[in-house]
Amino acid sequence: MKKGLVIVNTGNGKGKSTAAFGLLLRAWGRGLRVCVVQFIKSETGKWGEIKAAQKLGIDWFTTGDGFTWTSKDMDETVARAIAGWEVAKEKIVSGNYDVIVLDEFTYAMHFAWLETNQVIDWLKSNKPTELHLVITGRDAPAELIEYADLVTEMTEVKHPYQQGILAQAGIEF
Amino acid sequence: MKKGLVIVNTGNGKGKSTAAFGLLLRAWGRGLRVCVVQFIKSETGKWGEIKAAQKLGIDWFTTGDGFTWTSKDMDETVARAIAGWEVAKEKIVSGNYDVIVLDEFTYAMHFAWLETNQVIDWLKSNKPTELHLVITGRDAPAELIEYADLVTEMTEVKHPYQQGILAQAGIEF
Repeated sequence: MKKGLVIVNTGNGKGKSTAAFGLLLRAWGRGLRVCVVQFIKSETGKWGEIKAAQKLGIDWFTTGDGFTWTSKDMDETVARAIAGWEVAKEKIVSGNYDVIVLDEFTYAMHFAWLETNQVIDWLKSNKPTELHLVITGRDAPAELIEYADLVTEMTEVKHPYQQGILAQAGIEF
Repeated sequence: MKKGLVIVNTGNGKGKSTAAFGLLLRAWGRGLRVCVVQFIKSETGKWGEIKAAQKLGIDWFTTGDGFTWTSKDMDETVARAIAGWEVAKEKIVSGNYDVIVLDEFTYAMHFAWLETNQVIDWLKSNKPTELHLVITGRDAPAELIEYADLVTEMTEVKHPYQQGILAQAGIEF
């Protein structure tokens, strides 16, 4: 049996979720069974990647409420992260997928909405050996990096916001 | 008219091409017209991203011959890079696309198969203002970074090869 990789895309730059999405599509292109459990972001359907996934019939579970750094209702945000982790656990043990992306999941650990060691311990005990798991987000905890097989840090070298260019539909979201 | 972004994904880590591919799919999800001109890699059809693109009807032009660091026939490799750039130029000015990915294109400049300044000058004069251009590969030349709007460096933090785990179909290629 092949060992499924635990992949972490972290850092302050672009491309963490986008690379996870690209990996998902690559896997889908080979006929693997894939899904996304998306933390933080809300189900507005305004995201290009969700539109693409819908077109492709890829399972995509949004669990967030559109949390931003100015969110007022942190109780709701935390409750959604905890509920999202329950969704993720269910998908992980389901046997229905070869590749699962937990998008923006690092925040739940970084902000201690979930206990990092409990998450890692659960994964060590319950993740099917052959399942590939991709986790994205800034500030990946050290315990997660230790547990992961493949960790990439995306670093912002130059960003158009610096030049006053706004984010554009279809490119950055 | 919106300004198209020039995006560069560089660095020694994973995710450069994968993030470009994810961006492409996101754009495709929004109905934008997208294509890939792929340098270096050959048309073996063994790549998961090509399989996915084929399923989606995304235009994908491979121009390389499977160059590796042990390639013997450098004349052929260089000739293909030059021919690939001609393909890229044709697609860029065609007006048929909103987003074009030049995958692994940095190498042609880094190894001076193409003159970087000539490439940049051509782009400055000929790239349609609204076209988004994504260029991937290690060792992006300084002139390219200067020209680009959005530059991300992907850095390898941890890699499974270090642990003796081989690359896996559908995940890394």
